[in-house]
Amino acid sequence: MQETIDLKRRYLLAGTAMSAGLLAAGVRTSAQEAATALPDYVSFKVPDAMILHSNNTIETQRGAIGTSLITPESKLYIRNNVTPPSASVVEDRDAWEVEIAGVANPRSMTVGELKTLGIESVAMVLQCSGNGRGLYPEEISGTQWMTGAAGNVIWTGVPLGRVVEALGGVAPGAVYVTGTGGEEIPEGIDPLSVLVERSVPVEELDNILLAWDINGEPISLAHGGPLRMIVPGYTGVNNVKYLKKLAFTTEQSPARIQQTRYRLAPYGTSSTPEHPSVWKMEVKSWITGPLESAGAGPVVITGVAFGGYNAVSGVEVSADGGATWQAAEFVGPDLGRFGWRVFAAMVELAPGEHQLMSRATDSEGNAQPEVTETNNSGYNNNGWRVHGVTVTVA
Amino acid sequence: MQETIDLKRRYLLAGTAMSAGLLAAGVRTSAQEAATALPDYVSFKVPDAMILHSNNTIETQRGAIGTSLITPESKLYIRNNVTPPSASVVEDRDAWEVEIAGVANPRSMTVGELKTLGIESVAMVLQCSGNGRGLYPEEISGTQWMTGAAGNVIWTGVPLGRVVEALGGVAPGAVYVTGTGGEEIPEGIDPLSVLVERSVPVEELDNILLAWDINGEPISLAHGGPLRMIVPGYTGVNNVKYLKKLAFTTEQSPARIQQTRYRLAPYGTSSTPEHPSVWKMEVKSWITGPLESAGAGPVVITGVAFGGYNAVSGVEVSADGGATWQAAEFVGPDLGRFGWRVFAAMVELAPGEHQLMSRATDSEGNAQPEVTETNNSGYNNNGWRVHGVTVTVA
Repeated sequence: MQETIDLKRRYLLAGTAMSAGLLAAGVRTSAQEAATALPDYVSFKVPDAMILHSNNTIETQRGAIGTSLITPESKLYIRNNVTPPSASVVEDRDAWEVEIAGVANPRSMTVGELKTLGIESVAMVLQCSGNGRGLYPEEISGTQWMTGAAGNVIWTGVPLGRVVEALGGVAPGAVYVTGTGGEEIPEGIDPLSVLVERSVPVEELDNILLAWDINGEPISLAHGGPLRMIVPGYTGVNNVKYLKKLAFTTEQSPARIQQTRYRLAPYGTSSTPEHPSVWKMEVKSWITGPLESAGAGPVVITGVAFGGYNAVSGVEVSADGGATWQAAEFVGPDLGRFGWRVFAAMVELAPGEHQLMSRATDSEGNAQPEVTETNNSGYNNNGWRVHGVTVTVA
Repeated sequence: MQETIDLKRRYLLAGTAMSAGLLAAGVRTSAQEAATALPDYVSFKVPDAMILHSNNTIETQRGAIGTSLITPESKLYIRNNVTPPSASVVEDRDAWEVEIAGVANPRSMTVGELKTLGIESVAMVLQCSGNGRGLYPEEISGTQWMTGAAGNVIWTGVPLGRVVEALGGVAPGAVYVTGTGGEEIPEGIDPLSVLVERSVPVEELDNILLAWDINGEPISLAHGGPLRMIVPGYTGVNNVKYLKKLAFTTEQSPARIQQTRYRLAPYGTSSTPEHPSVWKMEVKSWITGPLESAGAGPVVITGVAFGGYNAVSGVEVSADGGATWQAAEFVGPDLGRFGWRVFAAMVELAPGEHQLMSRATDSEGNAQPEVTETNNSGYNNNGWRVHGVTVTVA
């Protein structure tokens, strides 16, 4: 971590955003060594693909994404607000119970019962609200995520609408869907200070899944199994792990994670319940190759792009630090509105240093900004300039 | 293997196709034990997901597919006609050379150079020509594949068209694209008797990829890395591993694997070059759950369906051995014409035994037949009846 900060200082001292690529490369290299000591609960991760910030914050190496459409669980980032519950909760997955409230006939249901109500899958970018925090020029406390607190995964579960239908419909007056995580709350502490309970607008009802599988496998404990609330297009924190209660509510959760954390407050101020909650994701892209060097001549630049809550509609690439742009092409299948797309663009590179940048546009015409205005907690960074890389062509 | 044959005898003696499900279940259980001794070159496979027929023929358990849209390499079937080359060939992947012939300017290219020509990805069902051989009622020599010599994977590489363009175009008169594998040919044996060299119609030029990645990772040695010829919609054997030569030719390969093997000869006859080659795949589907038992009441039947060379357009499910049918729904993203789709249908099941069947239709209106006429080598089995399962509901 100290090295990350040092690199950031060096980057700031250099006084140019152009060295962001070197910054990212430096962190990648230093952290690659650290990731050999992954904690037990994520022993299935590929160490070389990860950056270990802490036992509860583990990033995917930028280079590990390559041109992969789907991110395997073995390379997906980890961000837990609280230590996960005991592994015993995934011993009998179908027996896990979730309480459903705020419906005409509230009751608990097991995962086994949920599986008889219907099934749907959605491809979705799962991205931590703080992804890119380490690329803001200011020093912001929190994990210094670069690009790798994000992955594209397929969730399978029952549409929440089917559950609601089985329970007689939503009770009148609901404004939010509130999910409660099953993490254990330590003794002697205000439960609301650590409870993972998030509320999202009830308008998301038709998109939400209660999911038991990720990429065709039962969701690991590390990623929220046996049951996770999936809100496509919303940042990671809204996708509540170990879902033990789902309620249709008139108010947002009183938990600190909802009230004052994950809010977009101006840089240098404290966030309050009046600041916008970190909910929908914005359009974003980054280059995944080349990251450091390339041969002179034709080079295929690849990357990933997504619209967040909207579909991504196009990507442009620049090989001169944003002075000129050319359209990239999407590569491979379109997994739908909430997934990411792999893109590629061919450029001719002469020997020397080149700043490679990408910028995506969504189906509503929103484009990545050159710079995202810094907010107090460093959320939602989608500025294209700091996501660029500097490549040396020999 | 003896157990497989015994089970098939019992199935034939029972005199009813309805026990096909039990047959499959029996094989699945017995083989699950065998798969604990996987050979070194496939040590990355999940043993519980595999059925070890031999070191070069390893099947995916039917239950291991579940509702997964993409089959990870760790669960993908293995079928090698010849022992793979030394692992040294994947030590420096970009240095692998492929000779391109039958073009205006023939020459060798490295994988590194191919990567500068362009990139594309295609989701494709990879299926062994003999998948389902073990479900034909006749005894046919060869691996007794059930459903699991198939998977849905994403290949990434350069479109063959880009390579041809870089080499001045296809030479006049080409009728076939002929790919040659890089397996080592044992001494003292007619090379053509073991050479893996396959020809496909030149009309496939626009679909063919020269691939270096599978599911976003470099292709393992076991699956044909560092370079594999991918012919979407064609059975596995046509997708030549360790591609060392690709030629546009006027004749089909003289290798035995092309001339007399992988031909559709009537059952009980010997195949000759005049019989149709096993090329395009047919429309097919099978149920992946439940496979053995279910609780009484609503049950979600799931499975996979693909059109082979054409897109799959619909699937029906029967819970009464094919007497009545209901439409299933597709679940999750559509990966395109050559991929498979996951399907689901909800049925109500009373206690007792139920025969679950599925039957798919492709975009050209071709439907799975009830029974595929047996051919001499047991290829292309897509009959819906033998692909059914018998489920006990308690």
